[in-house]
Amino acid sequence: MMEPKVSIIMGSTSDLPVMEGAAKILDEFGIPFEMNALSAHRTPEAVEKFATNAADRGIKVIIAAAGMAAHLPGVIAAMTPLPVIGVPIKASLDGWDSILSIVQMPPGIPVATVAVNGARNAAILAIQIMATGDAELMGKFKAFKNDLKKKIVKANEELATVKYQYKTN
Amino acid sequence: MMEPKVSIIMGSTSDLPVMEGAAKILDEFGIPFEMNALSAHRTPEAVEKFATNAADRGIKVIIAAAGMAAHLPGVIAAMTPLPVIGVPIKASLDGWDSILSIVQMPPGIPVATVAVNGARNAAILAIQIMATGDAELMGKFKAFKNDLKKKIVKANEELATVKYQYKTN
Amino acid sequence: MMEPKVSIIMGSTSDLPVMEGAAKILDEFGIPFEMNALSAHRTPEAVEKFATNAADRGIKVIIAAAGMAAHLPGVIAAMTPLPVIGVPIKASLDGWDSILSIVQMPPGIPVATVAVNGARNAAILAIQIMATGDAELMGKFKAFKNDLKKKIVKANEELATVKYQYKTN
Amino acid sequence: MMEPKVSIIMGSTSDLPVMEGAAKILDEFGIPFEMNALSAHRTPEAVEKFATNAADRGIKVIIAAAGMAAHLPGVIAAMTPLPVIGVPIKASLDGWDSILSIVQMPPGIPVATVAVNGARNAAILAIQIMATGDAELMGKFKAFKNDLKKKIVKANEELATVKYQYKTN
Amino acid sequence: MMEPKVSIIMGSTSDLPVMEGAAKILDEFGIPFEMNALSAHRTPEAVEKFATNAADRGIKVIIAAAGMAAHLPGVIAAMTPLPVIGVPIKASLDGWDSILSIVQMPPGIPVATVAVNGARNAAILAIQIMATGDAELMGKFKAFKNDLKKKIVKANEELATVKYQYKTN
Amino acid sequence: MMEPKVSIIMGSTSDLPVMEGAAKILDEFGIPFEMNALSAHRTPEAVEKFATNAADRGIKVIIAAAGMAAHLPGVIAAMTPLPVIGVPIKASLDGWDSILSIVQMPPGIPVATVAVNGARNAAILAIQIMATGDAELMGKFKAFKNDLKKKIVKANEELATVKYQYKTN
Amino acid sequence: MMEPKVSIIMGSTSDLPVMEGAAKILDEFGIPFEMNALSAHRTPEAVEKFATNAADRGIKVIIAAAGMAAHLPGVIAAMTPLPVIGVPIKASLDGWDSILSIVQMPPGIPVATVAVNGARNAAILAIQIMATGDAELMGKFKAFKNDLKKKIVKANEELATVKYQYKTN
Amino acid sequence: MMEPKVSIIMGSTSDLPVMEGAAKILDEFGIPFEMNALSAHRTPEAVEKFATNAADRGIKVIIAAAGMAAHLPGVIAAMTPLPVIGVPIKASLDGWDSILSIVQMPPGIPVATVAVNGARNAAILAIQIMATGDAELMGKFKAFKNDLKKKIVKANEELATVKYQYKTN
Repeated sequence: MMEPKVSIIMGSTSDLPVMEGAAKILDEFGIPFEMNALSAHRTPEAVEKFATNAADRGIKVIIAAAGMAAHLPGVIAAMTPLPVIGVPIKASLDGWDSILSIVQMPPGIPVATVAVNGARNAAILAIQIMATGDAELMGKFKAFKNDLKKKIVKANEELATVKYQYKTN
Repeated sequence: MMEPKVSIIMGSTSDLPVMEGAAKILDEFGIPFEMNALSAHRTPEAVEKFATNAADRGIKVIIAAAGMAAHLPGVIAAMTPLPVIGVPIKASLDGWDSILSIVQMPPGIPVATVAVNGARNAAILAIQIMATGDAELMGKFKAFKNDLKKKIVKANEELATVKYQYKTN
Repeated sequence: MMEPKVSIIMGSTSDLPVMEGAAKILDEFGIPFEMNALSAHRTPEAVEKFATNAADRGIKVIIAAAGMAAHLPGVIAAMTPLPVIGVPIKASLDGWDSILSIVQMPPGIPVATVAVNGARNAAILAIQIMATGDAELMGKFKAFKNDLKKKIVKANEELATVKYQYKTN
Repeated sequence: MMEPKVSIIMGSTSDLPVMEGAAKILDEFGIPFEMNALSAHRTPEAVEKFATNAADRGIKVIIAAAGMAAHLPGVIAAMTPLPVIGVPIKASLDGWDSILSIVQMPPGIPVATVAVNGARNAAILAIQIMATGDAELMGKFKAFKNDLKKKIVKANEELATVKYQYKTN
Repeated sequence: MMEPKVSIIMGSTSDLPVMEGAAKILDEFGIPFEMNALSAHRTPEAVEKFATNAADRGIKVIIAAAGMAAHLPGVIAAMTPLPVIGVPIKASLDGWDSILSIVQMPPGIPVATVAVNGARNAAILAIQIMATGDAELMGKFKAFKNDLKKKIVKANEELATVKYQYKTN
Repeated sequence: MMEPKVSIIMGSTSDLPVMEGAAKILDEFGIPFEMNALSAHRTPEAVEKFATNAADRGIKVIIAAAGMAAHLPGVIAAMTPLPVIGVPIKASLDGWDSILSIVQMPPGIPVATVAVNGARNAAILAIQIMATGDAELMGKFKAFKNDLKKKIVKANEELATVKYQYKTN
Repeated sequence: MMEPKVSIIMGSTSDLPVMEGAAKILDEFGIPFEMNALSAHRTPEAVEKFATNAADRGIKVIIAAAGMAAHLPGVIAAMTPLPVIGVPIKASLDGWDSILSIVQMPPGIPVATVAVNGARNAAILAIQIMATGDAELMGKFKAFKNDLKKKIVKANEELATVKYQYKTN
Repeated sequence: MMEPKVSIIMGSTSDLPVMEGAAKILDEFGIPFEMNALSAHRTPEAVEKFATNAADRGIKVIIAAAGMAAHLPGVIAAMTPLPVIGVPIKASLDGWDSILSIVQMPPGIPVATVAVNGARNAAILAIQIMATGDAELMGKFKAFKNDLKKKIVKANEELATVKYQYKTN
């Protein structure tokens, strides 16, 4: 088994259904990863141990997800030199609390924030980050972007049939 | 010099002008306190050391102030059994980011949140908390509440003169 | 039967399902408490009588919950020297109205505000407040915090099994 | 001196510059009024005494202004059968806190809310309310509405001159 | 059949389920009223005719409800000297659009705004307004306020039984 | 088959159920139109080709719908001289993200924004725009506006029956 | 003097400094226009007269600006078949009230909304609308769009000089 | 002169004072970079050319800043495989529009969003990203993080002197 390069951390196991979206993308790219639940508030020592060791264990990017007063991404970012991607989880107040708790980091400690429940995009961003130093991965990613286009082009062709019923003749 | 009973922590020394409001109230009540700047993100080890030792040093209540993605109060609350009072500092987005980052703590780790820039109220709350186990302090606090009333009654008497110019006769 | 030390007040009996979360925690700690519905707007005299007598009846901390224009916590805080914990109830506008009506108290009369529907955290905070003057309760509370950690560690172990299906091998 | 028919209450004397707008309108209509500062939180007994006696003293309408967690209008409305007009004062968070604390009153106790800092409109509404049972006042009010139209018509004539410099000829 | 004294206007018949709350209160007080659907945008002439004639037909208070960009209350208020009570209907954006479109009226033309979907409170406010010039109605209203108290007192007694199961013995 | 005059573009085929509202109105007016799914982010070249050619193909107005960070309307507006109508789709955060991403266009490149999910209004606006240069269409549109009035008048007549049960007799 | 084709209406003469931005653009294109102040609330009859006659006077597009509970654009749109462009004016609450009061129009009566204080863009949109039926104007507009590009290209060249001081060599 | 590795793009030269914060950090690390103003709306072809060529020119990370309906970061991200960091500029509505227009990207095309006006953090994040494949840069970055700690520790020492005047003795 290969050593994980991406670490997906979530504040609660209840975030798992959302974060599976990140796992699927990483699997699709064949990126070895790990998934753990660590709470910034309930297991602070475990978070510290995780964050301070991640780089030495060979992790390249950390994806951290949390809801409400979502401190996990920022707390991890404070204790690792690795780039941290933050995923605001919609758990209360439609997600406004987690967006602001993650994106509004003060000067010195950025968190790369994606959309509410944007687990899939967090994984894509992790791949783009690793691809800056990995030409083969960059090649795979370019192919992935092309596939996205093809899917919407195909969806549009299906729409072309649907729309016909509205079209004036 | 007496050992401090209240510890005022702020995320940045730029929060000092706001947090002086808390210091003044504590001084008025003769409560020994300490004031420090500790950043949840830039000095995580110092925060951990502070939070895990505070109770043993004789601190009874912690007042923690921070702006933007204000993690300091929650991070401290995670590592101490003491009650933590959070003061959202208005630094960006009119203070919405710090309110939500402080008040919306997940189950298990509460932060007693006061109004944006509510340093004065944070100190009053700290006194009320300590007064639950200190009859003398409770007596002082009741007198303080009475003084508040007198001030507004006096302000109203002054208003009575001012208003006269509007009154139809 | 022991005299209640914590008083849980709610603006409407419809808040009961949320506030049971506070009752469960207090029961877990063996803290005697009482629960009442008192409306700041519909039973102002009853609220006044309650608030002005609570300290003399031996109450140490008041937990007050209300929704919409949630005045109950602030109105009680105005008439008691005891610390008042406010629980914003989500009843309209996703809870924004009750958060702001509770947390934004003007100088002089703080309310220790917790998250929307944060009944459980309100009770934990009440215990932390009483523990500042009660070494035995402080000991129990430290044990409670340790249990929280164990639960998330256990949840993580379960996650370790789940995640395996995503892991690249 | 005539007995006051309208009572203007404000949470703090610092609201006076805004509330003078209400006083001016009432003076313009020759409505006897009174102005007082009473805090729902700092002088609850004075508020209660005021609210429970207002109707018996001949007051017909109460205008109550407050900022932040603005409880004053709702607290007064709870203790009087008179209609209460609420004026949200902009003191923090751009006024969002006071709007919601005033307008979102729960079923049973309405507060007739006007715009942020809308003191002038509060007085106009008070006059409209009293005019429902006072034909002479209704006549005066219709004349006032006509004057408003004339002012904007005149303003438009002035604009007609100004705009000329933009007009293509 | 008595002539209507209160006119309930709604922007769309889809607002009827909410506005029935106002009708029930008026019926309870025996106040003759009428209910109509008039759109500020789709039937502007009908709105104008309604608004300019309402006072002459003996209407004392108008309750106007609308959702989204809720112009109906303000448009009616512009064309009648009668007090207009605005009810923001929750139809989109959780009701934020209708609150702001109704409460933030510019100087000169107030709308007495109540809570989102606050139909019941709108009717209570209409009664309070009419009672300023009607001693008998004022008497009825005082009795109504007393009944509100009794209901919550009774609810509390029921709660006393319920709470028992949480109480430590 | 006539050449399309209006082009309906949506960011995702999942927006189709909302955008059918636009198609129905255009069909009702006999306006030839086309419907396509083009993503500003996933098919940028297709968007560019569409936007730069639309005017030459005889399109008069473009209706563009998108959710979340809704860039499609603005991106198209940047590359065509045609008027672009933007429809914010409610997909996340209750639609606040798409409203602001569409309406707050910087100086130079306007997008004519309608309400969240306002597909029907987008089509009506497109007709009004084309009618500025087409007297026959203007005539049809006036008839349409009259029909809207009749519908609400009829709805009101039905309400007149319904309301009767509330009316005091 | 040519007959005006665009009519700029503002709710108050205080909106003039913002709306001059629209006038300048129309002047630049040589489009004859008129500017008036008409209040939906203070001069409803004048608004009605304006709106119902505008099309017959040869007006092609109406630009309507208003702040707070900004009803003017919607009220005019209700009474004219012409396309109405709404400009939310920032007068209170940072402009949130006027944005929502204008953009969230209910089905049947759209207002083409632009950004807060977006007077310039309103005029550009008006030109784009008229250009759908006027080939010469369309030509002018394409040239205008090209000029916008050149300006930013030139600004970038200036930036190229500025940036040099940051560049690592 | 070395080839640039980071490209800072801003929507308008008026964003330069904010974005200089990014330039300073990159200079401090000796990272070659370039700065350009390119508007998603006014120079779409230039943006396309830039985005599609950036990777081939040796750029590793793009930092894109924009205000209002801030499409620039997302539009660039759509056309490059490189990671794009988005900086919301505060230009209107306190920055809410630019935050949401940047962070709420739909599935497939992430933008790594930082705080409002967070130029400095954008550059730090860019360095962290490049350091995932550059051990020397990682070493420099760890030193930088240590310096941040020292600065706040020193600030705290200064605070220790200041606080003394509040301390009860």
